[in-house]
Order: sequence, then structure tokens, then C-alpha cells
Amino acid sequence: MTGIKTTGQKKLMLFSGRAHPDLAKEVADELGVNLVPTTARDFANGEIYIRYQESVRGADCFLMQSHTVPVNKWIMEQLIMIDAMKRASARSISVVIPFYGYARQDKKHLGREPISARLMADLFKTAGADRIISVDLHADQVQGYFDGPVDHLFALPLLTGYIGGRVDRDRLTVVSPDAGRVRVADRWGDRLGAPLAIVHKRRDAKVANKVSVHEVVGTVRDRVCVLVDDMVDTGGTICAAAEALFANGAADVIVAATHGVLSDPAADRLKNSEVSEFVFTNSLPTPEQLQLDKITVLSLAPTIARAVREVFEDGSVTSLFEEHA
Amino acid sequence: MTGIKTTGQKKLMLFSGRAHPDLAKEVADELGVNLVPTTARDFANGEIYIRYQESVRGADCFLMQSHTVPVNKWIMEQLIMIDAMKRASARSISVVIPFYGYARQDKKHLGREPISARLMADLFKTAGADRIISVDLHADQVQGYFDGPVDHLFALPLLTGYIGGRVDRDRLTVVSPDAGRVRVADRWGDRLGAPLAIVHKRRDAKVANKVSVHEVVGTVRDRVCVLVDDMVDTGGTICAAAEALFANGAADVIVAATHGVLSDPAADRLKNSEVSEFVFTNSLPTPEQLQLDKITVLSLAPTIARAVREVFEDGSVTSLFEEHA
Amino acid sequence: MTGIKTTGQKKLMLFSGRAHPDLAKEVADELGVNLVPTTARDFANGEIYIRYQESVRGADCFLMQSHTVPVNKWIMEQLIMIDAMKRASARSISVVIPFYGYARQDKKHLGREPISARLMADLFKTAGADRIISVDLHADQVQGYFDGPVDHLFALPLLTGYIGGRVDRDRLTVVSPDAGRVRVADRWGDRLGAPLAIVHKRRDAKVANKVSVHEVVGTVRDRVCVLVDDMVDTGGTICAAAEALFANGAADVIVAATHGVLSDPAADRLKNSEVSEFVFTNSLPTPEQLQLDKITVLSLAPTIARAVREVFEDGSVTSLFEEHA
Amino acid sequence: MTGIKTTGQKKLMLFSGRAHPDLAKEVADELGVNLVPTTARDFANGEIYIRYQESVRGADCFLMQSHTVPVNKWIMEQLIMIDAMKRASARSISVVIPFYGYARQDKKHLGREPISARLMADLFKTAGADRIISVDLHADQVQGYFDGPVDHLFALPLLTGYIGGRVDRDRLTVVSPDAGRVRVADRWGDRLGAPLAIVHKRRDAKVANKVSVHEVVGTVRDRVCVLVDDMVDTGGTICAAAEALFANGAADVIVAATHGVLSDPAADRLKNSEVSEFVFTNSLPTPEQLQLDKITVLSLAPTIARAVREVFEDGSVTSLFEEHA
Amino acid sequence: MTGIKTTGQKKLMLFSGRAHPDLAKEVADELGVNLVPTTARDFANGEIYIRYQESVRGADCFLMQSHTVPVNKWIMEQLIMIDAMKRASARSISVVIPFYGYARQDKKHLGREPISARLMADLFKTAGADRIISVDLHADQVQGYFDGPVDHLFALPLLTGYIGGRVDRDRLTVVSPDAGRVRVADRWGDRLGAPLAIVHKRRDAKVANKVSVHEVVGTVRDRVCVLVDDMVDTGGTICAAAEALFANGAADVIVAATHGVLSDPAADRLKNSEVSEFVFTNSLPTPEQLQLDKITVLSLAPTIARAVREVFEDGSVTSLFEEHA
Amino acid sequence: MTGIKTTGQKKLMLFSGRAHPDLAKEVADELGVNLVPTTARDFANGEIYIRYQESVRGADCFLMQSHTVPVNKWIMEQLIMIDAMKRASARSISVVIPFYGYARQDKKHLGREPISARLMADLFKTAGADRIISVDLHADQVQGYFDGPVDHLFALPLLTGYIGGRVDRDRLTVVSPDAGRVRVADRWGDRLGAPLAIVHKRRDAKVANKVSVHEVVGTVRDRVCVLVDDMVDTGGTICAAAEALFANGAADVIVAATHGVLSDPAADRLKNSEVSEFVFTNSLPTPEQLQLDKITVLSLAPTIARAVREVFEDGSVTSLFEEHA
Repeated sequence: MTGIKTTGQKKLMLFSGRAHPDLAKEVADELGVNLVPTTARDFANGEIYIRYQESVRGADCFLMQSHTVPVNKWIMEQLIMIDAMKRASARSISVVIPFYGYARQDKKHLGREPISARLMADLFKTAGADRIISVDLHADQVQGYFDGPVDHLFALPLLTGYIGGRVDRDRLTVVSPDAGRVRVADRWGDRLGAPLAIVHKRRDAKVANKVSVHEVVGTVRDRVCVLVDDMVDTGGTICAAAEALFANGAADVIVAATHGVLSDPAADRLKNSEVSEFVFTNSLPTPEQLQLDKITVLSLAPTIARAVREVFEDGSVTSLFEEHA
Repeated sequence: MTGIKTTGQKKLMLFSGRAHPDLAKEVADELGVNLVPTTARDFANGEIYIRYQESVRGADCFLMQSHTVPVNKWIMEQLIMIDAMKRASARSISVVIPFYGYARQDKKHLGREPISARLMADLFKTAGADRIISVDLHADQVQGYFDGPVDHLFALPLLTGYIGGRVDRDRLTVVSPDAGRVRVADRWGDRLGAPLAIVHKRRDAKVANKVSVHEVVGTVRDRVCVLVDDMVDTGGTICAAAEALFANGAADVIVAATHGVLSDPAADRLKNSEVSEFVFTNSLPTPEQLQLDKITVLSLAPTIARAVREVFEDGSVTSLFEEHA
Repeated sequence: MTGIKTTGQKKLMLFSGRAHPDLAKEVADELGVNLVPTTARDFANGEIYIRYQESVRGADCFLMQSHTVPVNKWIMEQLIMIDAMKRASARSISVVIPFYGYARQDKKHLGREPISARLMADLFKTAGADRIISVDLHADQVQGYFDGPVDHLFALPLLTGYIGGRVDRDRLTVVSPDAGRVRVADRWGDRLGAPLAIVHKRRDAKVANKVSVHEVVGTVRDRVCVLVDDMVDTGGTICAAAEALFANGAADVIVAATHGVLSDPAADRLKNSEVSEFVFTNSLPTPEQLQLDKITVLSLAPTIARAVREVFEDGSVTSLFEEHA
Repeated sequence: MTGIKTTGQKKLMLFSGRAHPDLAKEVADELGVNLVPTTARDFANGEIYIRYQESVRGADCFLMQSHTVPVNKWIMEQLIMIDAMKRASARSISVVIPFYGYARQDKKHLGREPISARLMADLFKTAGADRIISVDLHADQVQGYFDGPVDHLFALPLLTGYIGGRVDRDRLTVVSPDAGRVRVADRWGDRLGAPLAIVHKRRDAKVANKVSVHEVVGTVRDRVCVLVDDMVDTGGTICAAAEALFANGAADVIVAATHGVLSDPAADRLKNSEVSEFVFTNSLPTPEQLQLDKITVLSLAPTIARAVREVFEDGSVTSLFEEHA
Repeated sequence: MTGIKTTGQKKLMLFSGRAHPDLAKEVADELGVNLVPTTARDFANGEIYIRYQESVRGADCFLMQSHTVPVNKWIMEQLIMIDAMKRASARSISVVIPFYGYARQDKKHLGREPISARLMADLFKTAGADRIISVDLHADQVQGYFDGPVDHLFALPLLTGYIGGRVDRDRLTVVSPDAGRVRVADRWGDRLGAPLAIVHKRRDAKVANKVSVHEVVGTVRDRVCVLVDDMVDTGGTICAAAEALFANGAADVIVAATHGVLSDPAADRLKNSEVSEFVFTNSLPTPEQLQLDKITVLSLAPTIARAVREVFEDGSVTSLFEEHA
Repeated sequence: MTGIKTTGQKKLMLFSGRAHPDLAKEVADELGVNLVPTTARDFANGEIYIRYQESVRGADCFLMQSHTVPVNKWIMEQLIMIDAMKRASARSISVVIPFYGYARQDKKHLGREPISARLMADLFKTAGADRIISVDLHADQVQGYFDGPVDHLFALPLLTGYIGGRVDRDRLTVVSPDAGRVRVADRWGDRLGAPLAIVHKRRDAKVANKVSVHEVVGTVRDRVCVLVDDMVDTGGTICAAAEALFANGAADVIVAATHGVLSDPAADRLKNSEVSEFVFTNSLPTPEQLQLDKITVLSLAPTIARAVREVFEDGSVTSLFEEHA
């Protein structure tokens, strides 16, 4: 006969870079698989070396890496890992990026700036990624930056479930720390049935150039304010917003954000703040000096594992969030 | 000798599709050129035929088309015009899109939707566009959707210059008609030194599914409210927001937006609204039934012509807006 | 263990744009499936909105759209539907285009024209199409315009089967209405064993510029002439050719063409013509005013359904037409 | 200061592969330049080695190669020459292909065939060609196969000028040797004001499978017939057509074609034919055994040189042929 | 229901070009399949025609072609065969190239040269190849020239197995014929536990320009020298090196190379050489005049067949060589 | 008139990333320009921010960055700088990479490894680089990894000029520290008219797995050995080779390499080595603890500046090295 026929098979393989192995391990446990054994090390001059210890030929590969510090190193490692997969004949490569680096540079604020969020998407495509799975992208449009399917996961159910179970909803006000993030607060408000307020940084036209005041738009007096954002980096904006809320009579302030980037001097700011609780997910590893009582970290592993399984089994990722649509 | 040497020359040529010839004519006048004579017509079944009546070889071509109704036809015409330029050996093709169609579909709100704003950028790239020049894109990120330079022009100086000269700034409040557009209002506030308010559409959790109330966040009583947005389409959102402002005691409401899309039933809504003045630019042609006294149309032609000239002469488009940065 | 293994599955899903739902419904019935429920509507300014109501992840998607009037709208709808499929993780996207718009603009007749048939192929590729299935492309070369497989279906067996059963083959002459379409007539002649004639539009060099005469090359007197073409648009060429045949003594004239585009003023021309019967397929919807006795419409649904099934099952589309090769 | 400014310069350089150096030399003479000295040789196993002996950095390079036998070798040489130019920083690469190999394989006649004409266009693009300049492509659609500008030159003015000056136009009939080439004959007819005839190969349905007769459609008795085609390869079709014309009473037959491919056994056929004159251009080198009295070769060098100059100087190639449009 | 579900199937099909059918047949036998019946012939002017006689839709196609003389023809044939597969809906296309043409032009030795090895990789990609399977590429980096997976097979186990079984290992010295090929000799040395020597072509600075001497670096006196290289083309380098070894007292010289290119005048050189045995693989057909007693040809068919099977079954090609790593 | 014509101008602009500003400054001085003022800083989480303080529209941009530690950061910075240039309408982008990171990962040594040198080339292309200018790439083939022109500069004249002036050429032997680097030594030998030796790492087959001895192939006793390589990283290979040379009676050993990577523990090794002098270029910054007497650093700035000028002025980079070809 002219050819050989067999039944098609498919195989899921889960990989992790070195940026945030704990989360990858949790996802592997949820899926009931082991992470693919991988040699990953730095040469003396910092170049990264990668080799997979098992054949990946024909596999649907899911490669986890969260873009924590040093962010450029971990992005490059992920790109190199993709290249090695592609050349080793992976059937498909889905990169799982719980926190997508450079997502904030999603547009030009001024002329002659890069649009690094688009650049990263193109780099992943060039290296060989077929799909991106990410969580709460800083701007939804980053989805459109990748030339292929993006499965966008939401931490909203996880975070509102937690917050909703801890505070009296009738006293709750959802607060955006900034004019540009109102839409996130809006979604929280809809979900928790709570009114909205905004902390608005306003330049005082009468005073010198860069002075600005934190104006609170909306009612916060005697309310339990949940300040929401997609990420907290150095904590400057969020802590200043919290101060403005207390100054305007807020009864309490809780901060909730998907991504706890928590770069220096976040540790000091969070410790010194009057905010009663900070709630993050484990999209990024929590620095040791921030493993404090008033910081709560919720795990994304079940969400990511379900998404990976749906992708592998040609199910529906949309449906995972439909109850919350 | 082995070759022939000459001094390089370059040539600007300005073209227009059939969507909004008046604006193209104005820009041509500003630049002191004629539009390139072009045969453009529809075959019996609606297919578009294009031919340029002059050689475009080696020229830096600027092709104006605004995506007014019927939007799909005019986008397709622009794509076909680009194809004809590319095959006729244009040196570069800059597409000038005062109003960029499908910019609102800039992300997936739900699973299994397209991201049409990205698709359009890719279609322009595929047809042969080297650069996009556009005005007040619905989302800044649309800049990143195009794989090449995008010169993003702003109508803010034009609009705030006009408004600022007509109202008492001390009585002015800038209002966003929607939680998602606060950043635009923020820029207006900074420029005019005015406080901010937001009309916030809130679903009432106690009542049935789709009922919502227009809540005004911020102070508007006895204020002259400038409701600002990037575009007014059917006028539903903006007119409802204006009503909420009057209901909350606003002294007057003016509406200012870059793009007057003004699809049906905008004509009725604008006529019947209490809003004292609507200010738009001519990024789109104004439908005849909307050429009313209370509608003011400011011309973008000088701005676009200056940008075209800077692009052609390797000057700086950024600097055109720097006084306003 | 390191990964998860399962048996591969594949799934056919059939979709339709809004251009010609009747044909899509017929094909679905032939295949024994339902069309995938799809939300498709126009925004107020004519932008198209699409959403699929079922998951398409991992499916082999077949998307039907015929490029009838308004042709630009339906092409754009198909492009947007492809984008939504691609981003929703379709495994493959086959676009089924019974009538391919802009196929006649398959070359430059003059300098500075576009090659729109190539442009359309590139747009489909860019949006994400993996394959095109089409019927009787105006020029076979359009197949080569798409960078991927094109399954080219032929209506010849359907049309000659019908005609062959209705006329006395010994009296039959196959006529090309134009010097450029002789090859189509040639294939008909081979299949029906009939001689060939050509209506040739000749400019009279002695008279002024644009006068031309319809010269009949070949013998038509007392013959039953079947005038064949790939499409009839306004009916001008075909009706003038029929007149020339009658003027040269033809006993009867029947017109047969795959695509009944039938743009204005085709209705009047066909009604007023002496031609005894017009035979088309349903590659395009028949305008209501053309649902006349002397117009016969043959269904392509069985042909398309068989092709879709062969594609899905990795069978052979070539073999469907081999008996007629 | 921050940078260095200078006036732009541009430089034309003309190159030739080894396939048809005589024509390249003629074009160089017309342009008043020397061909760029180039090392081109075959390694022992037939691999081609190329090196340019002068810097090509920043030059507008025109690379001539005609696809004569051995066609695959000369195409590959041209691809390799393009690669060397691209890597040596040529500013633009225009490939001049007087006879474009594989142009006849411009569509799939049967399933599972290649479309080699498209493939060649893609190979040239991949190697780095920016533009193709060619003469009388077998199908106009090949223009659309290249993703970039194609300057399509016509030999019609050259050929009809020659023929028109040698025969009595009142006695002239233009004849297509085949149903598929009628459009070429049509253009000749228009230009020379002559009637049209067709030699039509018809399979006799009553006899066994492959028998066919050469039927003459149209009037040729006592006429001077000019049999026209884009190319003559083995001469089989054209000589059989000539025979049919003589058999139908033609007074004389002249053959005119742009491309004299003249593969074996063309030499014998042409020598033995009753045709009084064969007219070709020098798009291909004429084999020595075909340098006969009844074969006339007209030079394309002036036409190609003018086109190259127009391209380099951003003039108009279209206008070169406009008098003949 | 909305769609049709079936179990996925996959099918291996093996094809061969006309360059080296014997090896393809051997591989087919090893795999227990027939080669896919293919029409392949040359048109009169040397253009290649291809058609597959069976449907290839959905198949994993493996296309064998070795780049023997005339190398440009066989490369072009392989490109055309890929194009036909792609357009006939092959699921994947793996090109098997036992000897990869132009691999020696893997870098620019001088300015204005091509990098033909990269160009070939790009041409294969453009035509539609998904994977390359090759044997002992002249430079390992050629792997990196292809944008996709390359399965690189090694003849080292085959060759060292043969040599190791025929000579006294204690007397063996492995010799590189050239400073640039030492790494290959190094691998042989490691595998056979033998010391290394190098024949080094050194220009004598004191004498005129092109005079050079063959200096032997390392000890060869009374040793059995195995001169190793990846290929032997005209035999010039290798025979000169052998002479130098004998001149330096070598007891015997054996030549081993993967690829016996053996272009003219290799036949004479090999016959006249003192070398006792030449060992090659059948990556290329052996010219008839070289089927000599002192030439041994080892078959790669088992190695290639195992690699093809591993690729098809998503096994591991790396593991085939692991024992030898 | 229809358009505007002007004389073309071109402008060179020189930029530097933050990796090795001293070299960039030297090159700027050689060219007589200032570096373009650029804002470059790290956000708190390590993401890089870039903005150019002058318009780059229409400029030929040369962007210097050497890939020193932390190599991933500096590569990413260069990619982001390219993106910002591209979006700011640079006319061309030439990236100058004196030391190209990941060049050593230029092939797969084992299955399932990446080919990072190719990946980097693709990332630069994707970001928008038009050309790479680099010095002494680890493998020449890396040139072929970039899809565009690569201007490859050589430090050989600089290094041999220095060494040749300091030692007695009659006593000189050029030594390769490794079987894989013999070709570099070969070029040195040709240039200095010196004999060749090789230090060859040989696994002793009789002892356990990883033991190897440094065998010297060739004569070194009483010679002044110049150990040459393209780079010295940790110094392990080169210092072991030097030891082997001394152990074999070398009179003196000098080390010369283009790139002094000098990662830990190079400092200790170099200090403790008996080698009398180490000669490098400034392709990389020299770590402070390695600014020792026995380390000589030669400047590449004149070479790079001349290459940049030749590129900008459409001169010849090849000719810069021709005297040494």
C-alpha cells in the first residue's frame, strides 16, 4: 500500500521557566502531571542555556513563566525555551504568562516612545508561540497585540469572592485610584452592587508646574473603601489614594489587585500604610519581606489549570467565566 | 563607467477616496497642491474600480479616506487604492484616516468576538500601507495594532481652544459621560484647569436585569458642564448623560467630541436635547439634516496638512502638539 | 507521569455570513448539521458586529459567504468572521465562496490599476483563512493568488447535464460571447460533442473611435446556440451576443452561466431578450424581480456539501470531478 | 550637532546572469553603462558561485536573466545573484526577466499539480527582489503572482510595426492557433484593423479517445494569415495550425510570437514548414541551428532600456505603451 | 446537532524526486510502504512538470530528494513538488535531503557573495516545507538557517562502525585534511579512541602568491591514517592530504566521508591514489565509473527510515543517536 | 500642480544603549557627531523605559549596544530602542553590536536545545532592524542568521598589527586552544607567516568518563606562542591551553582575542596565569578588577566609525579589509 495510517494522538506537556516555579508546581499538581524536566542555567556571562530532558515531539506544550524581576531575563528565558520547543517539533506552544511584562507600555504617551507591550507580543510570535494565556492584562487591547489566540483569564471572581465574604456589602464603596482605571472599579461595582468613587490626581493650575492634589470624586465618608487596580508596583499611587480616602473620612480601606509587583519601596509603603488589608493573587512570587499578616495572597493555580485543560481538550475558556460575565 | 548616478528627488502626492472629498480638498488647499486625478467608480454589482490618471512612481503618497457610512465600502476602497499605488511603484504610502472605522472594536468584550480594530490595521498593512495618520483614536492602543509608524494627531487643542474662548472657565466642569472615558475628560480638565465629574451608568442590583441609573459622581450643580468624548454616534449615551447633568442641577451643558459620527437617530436626539451646543470636527462629513445652528464644526484640515508636511519633510509630528503635551 | 495523552478528535462546524443564508442552509441540510448560531448585526454607523454562540475551539470551521451586493460589506463581514474564529482558537478555517468578489479584476488592463482579485486573496490570508473553496473562478489563476490550498469546484457537470438533457445535441453549437472566454466554450464543446462559434466584438477601423460590430466567427445558422460564460452581470454582453446570433440565423439561443450576478439593468434586458432560457446556479441569491419562468436556477448545494465533506475527511475533491476531466 | 546631513544620491547598476549576455550587453549599450563585472562560475558538482567585483551598496540594481535552457539553472543563478545583492546592501533590486520561466504553469489544470508560476514569483520575493520587469507574460495574471510592482512590457508595437510594414493589410487575417489564445489575436486584429480567425482543436466524439481535428473557425481562403501567439516552443501547435490554414486555402502564413523558445524539435519543424516567415524577438537567445533566412529576430533592447530608465528616474512605464493602448 | 465529530487519523506518505530513486526505494522498503506514484517529466524547454497520482490531502508527506548533479534542477524539482503538495492540502511536508546542496556556501568568505545555504533554506520554507531531515550538514549552523525543525542525522555511527571493525585501533590515527574540518576528526577520535593529526595547507610567505605546502601537524609515521571529512567532491584536497601523509611515513591511508559527491575529475584521482579504501554512504548516487573495488558504499536507508518513522509517530530522533552522543 | 517635489536629504544619527557608553562615545568622536540624547531608565520592576529627545524621522539610525552582562537586559534594551525608532519613522535602523550575545549558541549540540544565535537575529528583525554591524562573530554563519545585510568587521588587522610589532616573527607559533577554532589560528598564521599548533582536548578512552588530557599537536618548544581565539570568557580553556604549552616547552605565551568577556573567575585565572600578556579589543567594557598591566585593550572605535560612515555614504565596507583579505 502507498502509506501508513494510524489514529492521531495528542499529548499535553507542562513546562516552567525559572521565574516562579512554585505557581507552575501548583498548576502541575492541579492537572495531575509533572513538569517536564528541563536543564536551565546561566553561562558565566549571563547567557541562558536550556535543554529539555524528554522528547517534546508532537506535544501540545504549555510553558509557564511569570515576568517578575529581573523581568528582561525571564522574558528572554521564555523566548529561548520557545525556540527550543519549536526546533524540537512541538505540535503547539501555548505560553502561560500570569503577569505579562511591559503590559503598561501599551501605547505611546509621548512621541518617540516604544510600544513595548506590542513588541513583546511580536517577540513571542517570532520565537514560535502559538497562543498566549494571561491573567488580567493591564489593557485589554494587549490581547489584540498578539497575532493569534489569547486566552485572557480574570481574577475578578477570585478577588470579589474573597472580599465579598469579608465585608458588609452595604457599607462598601469601590474606588478607582486613578482616572484611567475607572473601568476596573466599574466591573467590581457591578459585581458587588456597590457605588463608585474615584481618586483623581488634579494639577492645580494656579500653583507651579508639577503640584497636584488627590481629589476624591464620589462619596466615601464612613464607607469601607475597596481600592481596586490590576497591579500594585511601588505602591505609591495606591497608598496616596488610600491616604486621600482616609482624609475624606473613609471608615476603612482595603486594597485588592491581581498582580502584586511590589517593587521597592513597596515593602515600606505597605507596612506603613493605614490600609487594613492588601489582597493579591500569586501571579507573581511574593518577596519574602512582604509576607506580612495584612497581605493576603490567593492562588490562581486552579484557574490556570482549568484553562490549560480546556485549551488542551478543545473545550471553552470563555465558559469558565460566563457565570461572571 | 559601471553605473549612472543622479541626485535623489522626492515627491509628495495627495489622493482622496470618495468618502469625504471636502476635507481632502481643504487639506490639498492648505498644502498648495491638487489632489491626484483618480478614476473611481462602482461596477454594476458594487465592486469598486480605481485608476490613477498620473504616474505615482517614486512618490510619497498620502491617501485620505474617512470611514463614514457605508463604512465597509470606504475601507475597501482605501485598501484597493493602496493596492493600485503599491503596484504602480509608489515609494511610500501613508494612509490618512481622520476617523478610523472599527476603532471601538479594539478588544474582546466577550469570548468569540473579533478584534476588528487590529484586523483593520493588518488589512492596511497587507494592502501595502507604510504608515497611518489618524486623529483621536478611540483607544490609544490602536496605534500599536499597526506594524509600522502611526502618527496620532489630537483635536484637543482645537476643541479646547474653541470651548475655552466661549465659556467662563471658573464655572466650567468637565464631565465624562461614562466610566470608561474618564481619561479623556482628565486631559480636558488639565488643559482648562477645570474640575472633573463622571456620569456613571450603574446597574441597580435590587431591580431586574438590565435596569440602570445614571449616577453623577462629582459636583455639577450650577456649573457649565462640558461633556467630552472622542465620538458621538447615535447620541444615546451623550444625551442621557446630559439629561442626568440637568437633573442634577447643571446650569448648562455643552457637548464636545472629535468625531461626529451621528448615525440615526442622532439627528432627532440632538435636535430634541437641551444641550446648548454640540462641537465636532470635520473628521467625518456632517449629514445634511444635522447642519443645525447648535452644531459647530471645526476644521482639522490645517492640523492634517501640517502633519502631512512634517512627514514628507522628515520634520517632527510630535512637536506639533508639544505646546500641549 | 510527565504529560497527559488522549486520542485526537476532530470536529466540523459550518458557519454562514448574512449574504446568502439560503444556500448555506441547503448545504447544512446536505451535511446533516445545523449552522453554528451566530450573532451578526450592524452598528448604527454600519460597522459589523459578530459573535459565535458556541465554542469553536479546535474545530475545522467552514465559513460560507457569497459575494453578492453589497459586495464590500459581505467581504468585510467574512473577514471579521474569520478574525473571530482565529482568536477563538479554531483549528482550521476554510472559507467557502461560491461567487468570489472582484475575481474579474484579476490583472491590470492599464497601468495604475489594482489587482483586486489578488488583494482579496491576501486579505483572506491575513485575516486567518487556511483554505478557499470556490466555484468557477473567473480566471483559473485566481487559485494561485491565495497562499494556500484552493479547492476549485466546477458547475460544468451540473450545467451540461441539464442542457444536454433538454436539447437535440446534433443541432447544438456552443458559442463564446467574447474572444476572451473561448476556453470555457471549448470545454462545453468537448463535453457535449458540439462545434464552436465565437461572437467577436470588432472595432471598425474605418469609422470613428468606439464603434464596434458583433461579428460571428463560425457557423450558427439554423443551430440551437448555447451561449456560455462564467457569469452574467448586467447582461449587456450576453444579450448583444444573442442578438448577433439571431441576426445570423440561429434557430434558438439558450444562455448558461454559473454565476447569475444580474445587476441592474439585467432584469430588463433578460425579460426583453429573445433568448428562450437562461440557466444559472444558486451561487448567488436570485433577485426577486428575476424569478421568471425563463430563468432556471440549479442548486450547487450537493456539490459544495460533498466538497466540504471530502475536505473534512481528508478525502479527494479532485475525484469529485474526475469523471468529467 | 547631533547628526550628519547630506544630499541623497542614487545610482543605477545593471547586472547580467549568464543565460543571455548578448541582450544584456545591448541594453547596457542603450543605457550607456557597462554591466557590473561579476564572477559567476559553476563548482564541480554544478553549484553556482557568484561574486560582484564592485560595491553595490545603496545602488538601484537591475538584474537581467532570461529563462532559457537549462531553465532551472538560470532561475537558480538569478535567485543567488539576488541574495548576494541583498546581503551586499543594494537599495533596490529589480529583476528583468524578458522570458519568465514556468509562466505556462500558471494554474492547476488537474488536481495535485503545482502552480509553478506563482512559486517562481514567491521565490524571487523571498530571495529579495523588489520588482519584476518582464515582457508579454503568458498570462497577465502572473503579474498578480508577485507581491510587489511588476512592470509588464509589450512586444506588440514592435511586432505589429514590423508585420504591418511588410504585408498588404487589406489581405490580412489574424489567426489564433488555439481557443485559449484568442485574446492575443484580438489585440493584433484591433491594431492592424484585420479580421479574426481561430484554429480550433476539436476532439471528434465519434472516433477514439485522443483523435482531434484542426477546425478553422472564420474565413482564411486567399488571405495572408498572421498566426500570432506569445511563444513558440516545439512548434507543434503553430505548425499544425499553419497546415490547417493552408489546407483551408490560405494564400500565405506568417508566424509572429514574442518568445522564440524553439526547443527540440522546433528546428526541424520550422525548416520543413510552408510558413513563409517566422518573426520573434530576442527575449531568448536564438539557437544556432535556427539562424535561418526565414526567421527574423527583432530586438527588445531599446524597449527594456527605456523601461529601466523610467523605473530608475521615477518616470512612467505605462506611458511607453500608451500610444498603443 | 451543530457539528460533526470524528476520531482524528493520520497518514504517512513517502515521495521521491527523480534525483536518487534507489535510495528512496530502499527507504520505502524499510518502512514497508510504496512510494506515491508521481508523474514527473521535463517539458521541451526543461521546465519540470509534476503531478501526484493519489490524493495527498491530510497526509504527513515525506519527500526525498538528494541534491546530486544537475543540482539546480533537482532542487527546483523538490521545490515544485512541495508546492504541489501544499496546494493539494498536505497536512505536513517534511523534506528529506540526504545531501543538502549549497551547504558549503554557508557564509560569506568575501564581501558581495551570497549565503546560498541560507537562501536554499528560505526557498524550501517559502515553497511550503515544514521540516527538513538531512544528514551530516557541512556546517551544523545550516540547521539554524531553516525557520522550523531540522532533524539532523549522523553517519558517524555507520562509518566508525565499519572502519572500527576493519583496522587495528592501536595503530589508528584520525586525520583532518584541513584546518577547518578538525572538529569532525575530533569526533572520530573520541569515538575510536585514536590520536589526531591535521594536514595544514600553509602559504609560504617567502615564495610567490599562491604557492602552499601541505604541512602535517601531529604524528602519522607508521600509523594507519583515517582521513575523515563530511564530503569528497573532486577529490583534490583529500588526495593531496593522503599524499602528504604517505610522504610523512604513514603506513596506510583510508578515506571516510559521508557524502561522495565525486565530481569530475574525482574518478581519475581516486583511481590513481595510493589510498587503500574510500568509504562513503549512499547519500548520493555513485557514478558508474566509480563503482570500483576500493570504493565502499554504506547504506543510509535504515537510518533515514527510522528517523521518518520517529517523526511520524512523534517519537524521538535524538534518541536514535544517543548511544553515540 | 499635482504634487510637491524636493531634493532628497539623508541624515545619520548615532545612538547608544546603556551597556557600553564609552565605546559609543569614542565612535561618536571619530565621526564628529554627538550621540542622540536619549532617556533610558528602569522602572521599579526592571522594565526599561526609552525615549529619544530629538526627532528621528527620516534618519539613518545607528544604534550601538554591546551585549555585556547582564546580557539579557541589554539585548532587550536594544530591541526596545529599535521599536521606538521604527515607530518614530526612522528611515533605516542599523544595529551595531560589537559583541553579539548568544553567538556561541549557534547550533544544536544536542537535541532539544535552542539555536539562540538565530533567535536573536530574528528578534532584531522583528523589532525592526534593517542591518547588523558586528565584529568577529563566533561563527561566520551567524551572518546568515539575519534576514538582511550584515556588515562583519574584523579585528584581525588590529590585533596582528599589535602583536606583529612586539614579537620576533621567526620565533612565533600561532596556537589554537581547541580543535574547533583552528580556522581562526589559520588566518593568523597566514597573516604573520607563522607555523600552526593546536591544543587538543582528548578524552582518554582507558580512564573514566570525563577525564581528558590537553595534547599539543605541532611544535611549540622554545617558541613564542600566540594563543588566539575570538573570545575569552571565564578563561578556563585558554589558561589550560597556556599551561599545556608551557608544559611542552614554550618559551612564552601571549593570548590574543577580540572579545574579552572575562566573566568570573576570569580575573583570578588571568592574574595567576603564566601568560605574559593578554590582548583584547574594547568590544566589551573591561571589568575594573581586570585593568591590569598584563592586559592590553585596543580600541575598535576607528574601525566601527569607518564602517558606519561607509554604510551611510553607500561606500564599501568590504574594501576596509581588502588589504588583509
